[in-house]
Amino acid sequence: MRYFDNNATTKMESDLAERFAKLCVEEYANPNSMHSFGLREARYLEEARRKIARSLSSDPREIYFTSCATESINWILRSSVLFKGRRKRIVTTSIEHKAVLNTLKDLKASSDIDYRTVGPERNGIVKVAKLLDEVDEETFLVSLMAVNNVTGAIQPYEEIGEELRRRNVLFHLDAVQTIGKIPIDFVSCFCDYASFSAHKFHGPKGVGVTYVRQGTPIRPLITGGGQERGMRSGTQNVPGAVIAATALQRAVECTQESSSRLREYQHRIKETVEELDGVVNTPENSISNTVNASFAGIRSEVLVNALSEEGVFVGTSSACSSRGDGGQYVLDSMGLDFSLASSSIRISMSRFTTEEDVAFLIEKLKKTVPLLKF
Amino acid sequence: MRYFDNNATTKMESDLAERFAKLCVEEYANPNSMHSFGLREARYLEEARRKIARSLSSDPREIYFTSCATESINWILRSSVLFKGRRKRIVTTSIEHKAVLNTLKDLKASSDIDYRTVGPERNGIVKVAKLLDEVDEETFLVSLMAVNNVTGAIQPYEEIGEELRRRNVLFHLDAVQTIGKIPIDFVSCFCDYASFSAHKFHGPKGVGVTYVRQGTPIRPLITGGGQERGMRSGTQNVPGAVIAATALQRAVECTQESSSRLREYQHRIKETVEELDGVVNTPENSISNTVNASFAGIRSEVLVNALSEEGVFVGTSSACSSRGDGGQYVLDSMGLDFSLASSSIRISMSRFTTEEDVAFLIEKLKKTVPLLKF
Repeated sequence: MRYFDNNATTKMESDLAERFAKLCVEEYANPNSMHSFGLREARYLEEARRKIARSLSSDPREIYFTSCATESINWILRSSVLFKGRRKRIVTTSIEHKAVLNTLKDLKASSDIDYRTVGPERNGIVKVAKLLDEVDEETFLVSLMAVNNVTGAIQPYEEIGEELRRRNVLFHLDAVQTIGKIPIDFVSCFCDYASFSAHKFHGPKGVGVTYVRQGTPIRPLITGGGQERGMRSGTQNVPGAVIAATALQRAVECTQESSSRLREYQHRIKETVEELDGVVNTPENSISNTVNASFAGIRSEVLVNALSEEGVFVGTSSACSSRGDGGQYVLDSMGLDFSLASSSIRISMSRFTTEEDVAFLIEKLKKTVPLLKF
Repeated sequence: MRYFDNNATTKMESDLAERFAKLCVEEYANPNSMHSFGLREARYLEEARRKIARSLSSDPREIYFTSCATESINWILRSSVLFKGRRKRIVTTSIEHKAVLNTLKDLKASSDIDYRTVGPERNGIVKVAKLLDEVDEETFLVSLMAVNNVTGAIQPYEEIGEELRRRNVLFHLDAVQTIGKIPIDFVSCFCDYASFSAHKFHGPKGVGVTYVRQGTPIRPLITGGGQERGMRSGTQNVPGAVIAATALQRAVECTQESSSRLREYQHRIKETVEELDGVVNTPENSISNTVNASFAGIRSEVLVNALSEEGVFVGTSSACSSRGDGGQYVLDSMGLDFSLASSSIRISMSRFTTEEDVAFLIEKLKKTVPLLKF
């Protein structure tokens, strides 16, 4: 089995999974319990928080545990509405994850907020000036993904963040596809909020993180017992948080080494796509683990299934949505015509992808694509 | 170590934790991915959903995975407001979990809804007539816990549910403390919604369940990729759901055997409390795993700490809230005076509690309580 769908979700390392299991059996107390067993779990939780903060050059008080990036994103967008004052506009892009786009749609239908989406250029990257042009005196928040999950395109989030800070507009960074892929630091990108999820960097599923810059207004989405300093109620998943923190630390430490190795693999895959008369939809300025490619005339699902039968698992444009509602809208936004947008696959590697995996993928692409063309 | 804080959270069984770890390493694909690996995970997820539905005599289409009971409760309460029509009142009790009470407080502050709380009798049980008296033509929802987490008191939820159905008032059952403790069946208690969490019955942390009776209106709290049939977005935690379903099945299957065994232990603990001049706050009609007891003159924290040093972990009145905001309000509501309410501890067993554990607890209570009295 060769897994090339790491932008959808990733495998946990065996040693971390074993430690996870051990924690579930041995370190199971409620961190809010007053006995020494509970206090020990509270310390584990805070150590996990510190580890995450350290890896991202932030402060532990800026890190909140949630259940997934989608929750984190909902939390931030829905909370921001409470602090908008007289302003009523959110600016975002047309290539954001559905967690952003569908939440904004819902907010628009249920409140007086409005939002504008800015499209990317043909290469999948949003132009700074074009986005900033939409940010007017009515705008209270900009939500932007650092890296697009479908194409791997890196967005100019630092430049945008800096200008937004100057204009006193809140900035939410969807950092889901960054951890372990590019160096990320929430201070130098001037974001006020950021969201990400552990299962995208070999951590457990069910653990999300929200970064809230100190002093930035925020109100809870989920209320109750007052956990996470009153900001996210519900018994914390201490084993999950501990393992997520270690997975994050490892991913961050390996970023440089793995991303340059994967760049080489990415290059080979792109060459193969072109040899097979395919079109590469991933721009130069991308994370190195992703190749989005279209083979006109072969529908995405057909190629995904054919490769799947060969034991190679690649994505359609996005698996982060329920089946049938993928990321084709991202390619549409880039101006790809229907034949290309509907025939795209997403190949996404991780730091555990080997040279043999890539050779196998290339072999199967070379076998499968010509067979399916007619 | 003797753990008597199972109403706060529970230990996972070793074999389930190992299987959990194996799933994290082997069955990690995104259930929304189109390749065969993703489809396999989707099947695992649906099998987990069916297993839960079967164990609770409900339909898989009525079961939604969330991240915890607090999220489930927030979801239901916050969603219900969208369907209230002209009615604007929620009725609940003063002894609900903070996930209910603080969410209602938040809803009252941010919308036009209003809520009324009904207090329990001196035994911690809410009178059916007293609650129904508050349900008027303005009431659209009643939220009631089946079992109180602090005292273990079983509430008359079936009678209340039946009457609410007749009156066409929606009924949310907080079923957190029921699974594995009493036989529970969402059909015969006439509830429209129910919430519970896997970590209360030896399942993993970070997995909650919401039951929504077919045909009952519901809107998502967390929007995005449209997972969980559009009702709860975010990549599903398949390993967590699979293990939670097995844990639930085991808990349900063991309910009768374990609850009668624990009843015997409960009896011994109650006797010990009385021998030590303590007061038992848990009524006759309670789940069998819980003894809430007060030792006037010894503050809860002091006794919890003293027992903790002896290797016995009991709760203060609730550990489901962030530290310092426990369940004392439940005892206050029952009419206990301050000296009793502030000196209560909660002893909560699980089906893995042994006779030796209970003997050890009793020995340590007999040693500790007299030492702390003055």
